Amino acid sequence: MSRKVGIIGMGHVGSTTAHGLIAQGAFDDYVLIDTNETKVTADMTDFQDAAMNIHHHANIIMNDYDALADADVVISALGDIALQDNLDADRFAELIFTAKQVPLVAEELKRVGFAGVLIVITNPVDVVTSLFQHYSGLPKERVIGTGTLLDTARMKRAVGQHFQVNPRSVYGYNLGEHGNSQFTAWSQVRIKGQSIVDIAPVELLEDLAKESIMGGHRVFYGKKYTSYGIASAAIRLALAVVSDSYEELPVSVYYEKYQTYLSYPAIVGRQGIIEQVQLSLTEEEEAKLEASANYIKKKFAETLSK
Amino acid sequence: MSRKVGIIGMGHVGSTTAHGLIAQGAFDDYVLIDTNETKVTADMTDFQDAAMNIHHHANIIMNDYDALADADVVISALGDIALQDNLDADRFAELIFTAKQVPLVAEELKRVGFAGVLIVITNPVDVVTSLFQHYSGLPKERVIGTGTLLDTARMKRAVGQHFQVNPRSVYGYNLGEHGNSQFTAWSQVRIKGQSIVDIAPVELLEDLAKESIMGGHRVFYGKKYTSYGIASAAIRLALAVVSDSYEELPVSVYYEKYQTYLSYPAIVGRQGIIEQVQLSLTEEEEAKLEASANYIKKKFAETLSK
Amino acid sequence: MSRKVGIIGMGHVGSTTAHGLIAQGAFDDYVLIDTNETKVTADMTDFQDAAMNIHHHANIIMNDYDALADADVVISALGDIALQDNLDADRFAELIFTAKQVPLVAEELKRVGFAGVLIVITNPVDVVTSLFQHYSGLPKERVIGTGTLLDTARMKRAVGQHFQVNPRSVYGYNLGEHGNSQFTAWSQVRIKGQSIVDIAPVELLEDLAKESIMGGHRVFYGKKYTSYGIASAAIRLALAVVSDSYEELPVSVYYEKYQTYLSYPAIVGRQGIIEQVQLSLTEEEEAKLEASANYIKKKFAETLSK
Amino acid sequence: MSRKVGIIGMGHVGSTTAHGLIAQGAFDDYVLIDTNETKVTADMTDFQDAAMNIHHHANIIMNDYDALADADVVISALGDIALQDNLDADRFAELIFTAKQVPLVAEELKRVGFAGVLIVITNPVDVVTSLFQHYSGLPKERVIGTGTLLDTARMKRAVGQHFQVNPRSVYGYNLGEHGNSQFTAWSQVRIKGQSIVDIAPVELLEDLAKESIMGGHRVFYGKKYTSYGIASAAIRLALAVVSDSYEELPVSVYYEKYQTYLSYPAIVGRQGIIEQVQLSLTEEEEAKLEASANYIKKKFAETLSK
Repeated sequence: MSRKVGIIGMGHVGSTTAHGLIAQGAFDDYVLIDTNETKVTADMTDFQDAAMNIHHHANIIMNDYDALADADVVISALGDIALQDNLDADRFAELIFTAKQVPLVAEELKRVGFAGVLIVITNPVDVVTSLFQHYSGLPKERVIGTGTLLDTARMKRAVGQHFQVNPRSVYGYNLGEHGNSQFTAWSQVRIKGQSIVDIAPVELLEDLAKESIMGGHRVFYGKKYTSYGIASAAIRLALAVVSDSYEELPVSVYYEKYQTYLSYPAIVGRQGIIEQVQLSLTEEEEAKLEASANYIKKKFAETLSK
Repeated sequence: MSRKVGIIGMGHVGSTTAHGLIAQGAFDDYVLIDTNETKVTADMTDFQDAAMNIHHHANIIMNDYDALADADVVISALGDIALQDNLDADRFAELIFTAKQVPLVAEELKRVGFAGVLIVITNPVDVVTSLFQHYSGLPKERVIGTGTLLDTARMKRAVGQHFQVNPRSVYGYNLGEHGNSQFTAWSQVRIKGQSIVDIAPVELLEDLAKESIMGGHRVFYGKKYTSYGIASAAIRLALAVVSDSYEELPVSVYYEKYQTYLSYPAIVGRQGIIEQVQLSLTEEEEAKLEASANYIKKKFAETLSK
Repeated sequence: MSRKVGIIGMGHVGSTTAHGLIAQGAFDDYVLIDTNETKVTADMTDFQDAAMNIHHHANIIMNDYDALADADVVISALGDIALQDNLDADRFAELIFTAKQVPLVAEELKRVGFAGVLIVITNPVDVVTSLFQHYSGLPKERVIGTGTLLDTARMKRAVGQHFQVNPRSVYGYNLGEHGNSQFTAWSQVRIKGQSIVDIAPVELLEDLAKESIMGGHRVFYGKKYTSYGIASAAIRLALAVVSDSYEELPVSVYYEKYQTYLSYPAIVGRQGIIEQVQLSLTEEEEAKLEASANYIKKKFAETLSK
Repeated sequence: MSRKVGIIGMGHVGSTTAHGLIAQGAFDDYVLIDTNETKVTADMTDFQDAAMNIHHHANIIMNDYDALADADVVISALGDIALQDNLDADRFAELIFTAKQVPLVAEELKRVGFAGVLIVITNPVDVVTSLFQHYSGLPKERVIGTGTLLDTARMKRAVGQHFQVNPRSVYGYNLGEHGNSQFTAWSQVRIKGQSIVDIAPVELLEDLAKESIMGGHRVFYGKKYTSYGIASAAIRLALAVVSDSYEELPVSVYYEKYQTYLSYPAIVGRQGIIEQVQLSLTEEEEAKLEASANYIKKKFAETLSK
């Protein structure tokens, strides 16, 4: 019945996500939503001015929540552009603003009867995903945050560059909060047929972890926002949902053991989270995961109680 | 021997062009160049952080003119970001800055022996394309401006929306300067098997012309720059070159009759401009074209003499 | 709600169509149907064996008419492979076989409540499209034959090769029956900004018409069937439907004036035929169209009465 | 400098490979070669008849070895169609025919100075790859067989179907001969964060190995040849080469330890095989690999001595 996606928030990330989707013809119908009507009108017209010169047809609708009733996927990229552009790089800086927006958006999704999968990009993503699930009343498996899918991509970039191999041929994940408490589960990382811990000394792993974080910083400080990496993570997740691909991806899911959203690998399909993978982490990794979970839970509780 | 593209200038248009190309796997090797090393580093890293999550592999090289020696296509999107963001919307506002940059870039292309096709986006595009051809010494058929490919797309959007048909099923072109003196050659526009002048009253044609121009303004004033429309025009032109497609496209070419670059339909292939089309314009249209040509020539002469 | 397509008949054309769709990720769900269960099982497994090495995910279901209930598009490529492989190249040779199959398939589509668009490839396509509409009870605008979309592509290939221009930059159509009575409406063909009748002598037009027909023969006699050209026509039509693109395409539609299916340009979208274009044909062309229409009507009546 | 591919042999596999490449716009220039000129003419024309209706432009050249001088990749799909269609399914049945063709083709590649990467599909692929390297004089790292890339895809299909996960989220490889002596190296297979040997009993692994082989048989006996699975493997390999992607793929490479071509994971880029991966196999697996190697060596020696 055709593919339909909604994107809420047309800041750097939202509009880059829309561009990436449209450039590859990923969906048929695009519903772009932003409280800044001048900006969303500009983006819509700019996309329509591209129509003659691109391969795929895109139907673009703007600021119409009702059009989301039968969307396959809604992507929340909402955020305050003014805040995005300041340079403290604190993902929690936006939370005061965002925490007020989420219930409003969630209410609209409820009102129109949205029954697809909600993908959350907005930072701090684990808390905002929790908020969206809380306010929307959608089943937990249908509200997913991009989480450490981006951190994992950064880790694979760093590992791939060091070992001279394509990032897609690096296996493994970053886990926990998409934030400072996240970590690479090195016990799970495999490269060139080997467990990375068997071929790389601890110092190297530390350097690689540092480099994957520094990469994000270079992007943020170099252009005052990040866009392509995070947009491509959201796009991949959206495609996994709409095509019902059952891919395994590290994303922010509700993790029963610690009763919070956090990033952990899961099988993703049209119904959202199909299954959570069960990893055999080291004790140290498990402790890091728990610490990360506790941090997210605390932040979520704080936000709810405000 | 693989596809290689260079993009010079990583402002809004340059980086959006890179994103569009990478998202659809249009080239293998990307050489990104900008005098702001922090910005180009940020974009390169951000693209590399996307690698794990996209379909196609992209090799990204930064600030290395030597790597352009065997590029198929170089796209000039150079421009002063600060100027781009101001709101006077005057394409000539950037010319003072750009006129100083072009000889430097052209000199580098000459030095490395670039022998592909140079596509110019930088505004005022007809003058800047003329400058690039002048300083680079490349044959005229190998230096092409995006010209009215974007204006044509805007016209087809407006016509398509009015007549309820896909812009790609509207035939025709905007001609002349990519600027205020451009015009739609309505005598050439066909839609639903008819010449548009036979089915649309003059007032409607005027409204459509106005709407296609206003669309551009809505984009520019709404987000302070335009990006998707112009990037998709540049991408289409780059693909026509690298795939040797012999498509007919209205682009800024050197037009012998008026001895200047201006937009006019041409057949585009791996050698650049393969052939210029010969239109049967009305007298009024021909007069408009000549006026537009004279304006570009005058601006070019002024710029050279400064 | 994801994109779903059904393909009925997994002979050369049906399986090539499925391959083209899957290779470009055009749909999410594919329902492949053939009375030869061994063949359809083989094709399904072969496609699944490709899954790891292609970009897009494809869910493949086989021989399940119920799965077509919510399909966007069903493509009928049914036909007797044994007949396809004989060399008399007579599109009516298959009709005896096909005329018995159509009611069975149509009945199944009715039973499951298929409410999308039915695209018919099976030859003689105008008669078979008429039969499908007759037996399925679907509204006429939702049953479309590929018709002269292929003949038009062949004409544009021949014209483009002669004039050294991309076929996509040739405008115009072949009309009437997808068969011997079809013809190129040269009055509508434009190339390089000119009407082709103004730049090509009559002998050349005759040669080009002959070449476009001979091309089809070279394919058929060279490999005993045709596949890529017709499959790409069906794919383009399916994409126009699912993406609601409102493209103008010459396809087999019910033409009120002559009360029969025949090929004539139409605007195609999610509801099927959105609008029929009104051409200004020459008297000679109009006479050819009427003759072609009468031929199809006669064949349809003969088939129904058997 | 644009992407150019040659395909030698336009039987089922060669033409399906060409179709897959053209449908996704993977290359710019296609050189199709077959001793049956009628067949290759038919395929070329059929592809050209598709040009108007597909997204990407393809330049198609036929039966011109000189055009391969600057090809990035040449794919050998040569084989006797008559033999392909018989049903004994014995990959060695074709060897008598093929062994005579290889030196002729290799000689032509040498004559024109082909310096790209040669990808061999023709069965028995390990022996034919050895023959091609022997007669062409190309460096070993530039002659690659598709090998167990297909068997691996079949294994991942079977494993993915059983464990309800996308085949791309299954890690591991089949090794050795692309033939009866190949095997899945279960010690290397990981799924849902676990080594498969830890979560699947031996009987299940045996069933999965059987199913992945039976799948191939179902395809072969169901349609008398296999095409999509093998074509997609060749396409993936060709894209890894032309885009210099450094992906890790199990393909037929020259394996020093046993002095023969056999399938083993390797990093693939523009220079062909960039690096061979070093696996930690079990003793049993290592023994199977050696047996498989010995079988290939023997067959290769027999063929050379004839």
